[in-house]
Amino acid sequence: MSTYETVRPMVMAAGEILRGLYGTAIGSYAKERHELVSEADQRVDELLRESLAREFPGYGIYSEESEESAGDGEHRWIIDPLDGTPYFLCGVPHFGVSLSLEVGGRVTEAFVFNPVSDEFYYGAASRGSAMLNGKPIRCSSTASIDEARIGVGFSANKPKIDRYFGDWGSVLDSCQKGVGLLAPALNICNVACGRLDLFIDHGSCMEGHSGAALILHAAGGIVRNYDLTEWDHRTKGIFAANRGLGEVLPRSV
Amino acid sequence: MSTYETVRPMVMAAGEILRGLYGTAIGSYAKERHELVSEADQRVDELLRESLAREFPGYGIYSEESEESAGDGEHRWIIDPLDGTPYFLCGVPHFGVSLSLEVGGRVTEAFVFNPVSDEFYYGAASRGSAMLNGKPIRCSSTASIDEARIGVGFSANKPKIDRYFGDWGSVLDSCQKGVGLLAPALNICNVACGRLDLFIDHGSCMEGHSGAALILHAAGGIVRNYDLTEWDHRTKGIFAANRGLGEVLPRSV
Repeated sequence: MSTYETVRPMVMAAGEILRGLYGTAIGSYAKERHELVSEADQRVDELLRESLAREFPGYGIYSEESEESAGDGEHRWIIDPLDGTPYFLCGVPHFGVSLSLEVGGRVTEAFVFNPVSDEFYYGAASRGSAMLNGKPIRCSSTASIDEARIGVGFSANKPKIDRYFGDWGSVLDSCQKGVGLLAPALNICNVACGRLDLFIDHGSCMEGHSGAALILHAAGGIVRNYDLTEWDHRTKGIFAANRGLGEVLPRSV
Repeated sequence: MSTYETVRPMVMAAGEILRGLYGTAIGSYAKERHELVSEADQRVDELLRESLAREFPGYGIYSEESEESAGDGEHRWIIDPLDGTPYFLCGVPHFGVSLSLEVGGRVTEAFVFNPVSDEFYYGAASRGSAMLNGKPIRCSSTASIDEARIGVGFSANKPKIDRYFGDWGSVLDSCQKGVGLLAPALNICNVACGRLDLFIDHGSCMEGHSGAALILHAAGGIVRNYDLTEWDHRTKGIFAANRGLGEVLPRSV
């Protein structure tokens, strides 16, 4: 069995946990909400950890939820149990599981799954291909800013919003539509399948963006660090673009 | 048959149109995107108009998409074919159909449906009850700002964001989580079922917020105009809160 065939059912089972807990969020109190997120994080983390350790003995596992298990020093799984936590809590069905495999410091395989919309993204560096529910995807071809749909990783936090407008104000003022979007893994995947043209986030973490960045790269897109330097998935933040904007923007910002 | 039993399948069929078109948005070009939204708006509008005219002859119908049909002057259907257009386009499955019935100038019945998450909200003034997928819902009980989850109707538009922070800065700075959220009808319904504690939007329109406002009211929440004056669904903008915040905030802002 390929890694894809082995790992896909694990990620889908993890997504089912999220979907079940999402349903119970209705009418919950402030304290219960906090516990709900912890439970989602822990149960998904546990399920993936156990099934990955069984099928891939010797591989390291990195997750925010628990201590890193070092493994063979060559292979490492990177887990984000719940991409889009604020949406999960606020009733927006744009959240999911993200999992990626690092080999010798490079991400080689990636899985991102939204269990409510039932959208499963997969990318592999070796094949240079990206898929959504088994069908190949490509990023969009828009190269002009005034036609671009742009996602920006902000919530209602004034200092962070001001920083984005300081860095990208001219782009955001002239694009077709700019939208504040959380759930970085899913947003980067939306660039990969052409529903967004650009996604920028200065706070995305390794576990959140690593897998999706590979998927976007395999779908023909361009990935850089948030400050437009060469992509390193271990760095905080991301600039995730279709090819056109990915070539045009670094010269004009 | 009750109005609910007659209208529910119409709204579900309308939602299916949106769900089908959402799937085709992948990889579309800028011009195709524009056409996709027009097609979604028009096809949903047409379907609802035709089925409502057949089952409720003499009732007026209001929709942004086509000229208003006046009807008997007493009954009027209000249609929003696509709540959450930017999300529909950008790959966020938080969009849907909103439909409400006005009798003698008051909203008496309301239907809001997200076809991807399969969440169907219904409210009726006569029964004083609100339901999600047939089960009664209530808004949350949080009355303290620092525990509150707040949705704010902004996209990445600086002047509009600044206006929200001018009006609500102290609340947004001290709440548990504030998130920019489009799709007003669905967000107001999320307040009704306790996943959000407050949603504020200065730009929501009658067709977008009328139905959901009734649902929230029936779920125990408090609805006002954006400027905190008495609710009139024909006015632009909304303040949609659970009971606790709905009573506390107007005194403290």
